[in-house]
Amino acid sequence: MNIAKEEAKKAYLLDEVPIGAVLVDNENNSIICSSHNEINKQNNSIKHAEIILIENACNKRKSKYLDNTSIFVTLEPCTMCAAAISAVQIKRIYFGAYDEQKGSLESLMKIYNQKGFFVPEVYGGINEIECKNLIKDFFQRQRS
Amino acid sequence: MNIAKEEAKKAYLLDEVPIGAVLVDNENNSIICSSHNEINKQNNSIKHAEIILIENACNKRKSKYLDNTSIFVTLEPCTMCAAAISAVQIKRIYFGAYDEQKGSLESLMKIYNQKGFFVPEVYGGINEIECKNLIKDFFQRQRS
Repeated sequence: MNIAKEEAKKAYLLDEVPIGAVLVDNENNSIICSSHNEINKQNNSIKHAEIILIENACNKRKSKYLDNTSIFVTLEPCTMCAAAISAVQIKRIYFGAYDEQKGSLESLMKIYNQKGFFVPEVYGGINEIECKNLIKDFFQRQRS
Repeated sequence: MNIAKEEAKKAYLLDEVPIGAVLVDNENNSIICSSHNEINKQNNSIKHAEIILIENACNKRKSKYLDNTSIFVTLEPCTMCAAAISAVQIKRIYFGAYDEQKGSLESLMKIYNQKGFFVPEVYGGINEIECKNLIKDFFQRQRS
């Protein structure tokens, strides 16, 4: 999660909402790739950290699935990202802060309770305070 | 929807699940871009027709939102795509066949009933039979 937080800090400095993600190979705990939110950079509101991570990892692995991997992400995934993580069959999700507005694993809804989804294991609240404060600071700075 | 069906047929010939999509500018009814499912081509299970369409259209418009546009897609969007369409604020969704397994606008769930979503207008069942038969034929051919 430390590397995911470093990615979130990169986003912060680039004036993107500070959310970072890392994908790890469960076989040997090596990092496959890391990413941060690039909505402004890529001029595209779907370019969340998780979507970019999945694109990079599928390219790298030349595989449409990301079997036996774990994603670490600083904020609870939204509906789009939770469904994307399931589509590529990532095995475990570790997230930092809970997102009461849009979090789709525990907060707004539990999307994997719907039928038809590949269901990853979910572990929330990892380094929650630090992950949350990064986002809180960003929006406080934006307002001031 | 005819152009979306042509895109679906292109996918069929390329051994991709035949789903096509078109984005139209509501101002003047001009086509912004069209796409089809490229999961195998791009080796990535999130490369649904709608995701590729959104990427191409945001690039073309150099905008993170796709205000005042309509998407025509041959199959009812899944959860990921429905959430992505909402994230870029596409105004209207016209879809062909209903998807009882994964359709997230009317079938499996009504995702926009959850709070926190930009809610597009939804019109389902446009050229339903033709859109459905394309997919049915594809899977029948795969099995034989």
